[in-house]
Amino acid sequence: TQQLLSKPKHKAHRARPCRVSTADRKVRKGIMAHSLEDLLHKAQDILKLKDKPFSLVLEEDGTIVETEEYFQALAKDTVFMVLQKGQKWQPASEQRGKKCQL
Amino acid sequence: TQQLLSKPKHKAHRARPCRVSTADRKVRKGIMAHSLEDLLHKAQDILKLKDKPFSLVLEEDGTIVETEEYFQALAKDTVFMVLQKGQKWQPASEQRGKKCQL
Repeated sequence: TQQLLSKPKHKAHRARPCRVSTADRKVRKGIMAHSLEDLLHKAQDILKLKDKPFSLVLEEDGTIVETEEYFQALAKDTVFMVLQKGQKWQPASEQRGKKCQL
Repeated sequence: TQQLLSKPKHKAHRARPCRVSTADRKVRKGIMAHSLEDLLHKAQDILKLKDKPFSLVLEEDGTIVETEEYFQALAKDTVFMVLQKGQKWQPASEQRGKKCQL
């Protein structure tokens, strides 16, 4: 008879590589995270956000990432952006452009 | 009965091929590295960085690579960039053109 090994069923997700950017796109760090909560904690620590509240959005278009389910469904190389109070998502093109101003 | 050989469990990582570029993208070298620490040492030596501090980022988008975990999660053909003090990551397009400067 065949015996199947019992797999732990999504109890713990495997750590996955994430990239997290500051709102000004000047710092971007590679962070391994098991879950959205894990990523929030690590981002807070690594980007030195102290205890101020912040939200996590997609760097690409500002989509707010709030649920574990949605986080897990994202691709491995997804770039996140941290937005603190008063900070707003801006497209990269607008932010970059400022260098060309006279 | 079947006996499985016990594998050493990620104690030592296998050496993996990495590409490392200078900040100006003028030199790019292929380096085999077992770990992030190993890559840092070899890059320092091979790119003749002497004892000056430097950081390692992804050539693609400037993501800072600081942890062994994140390093191990990267693809085999990842291109890294070495940034020394005062050097900043720039997109390849900007570096080539410098079109915005007067």
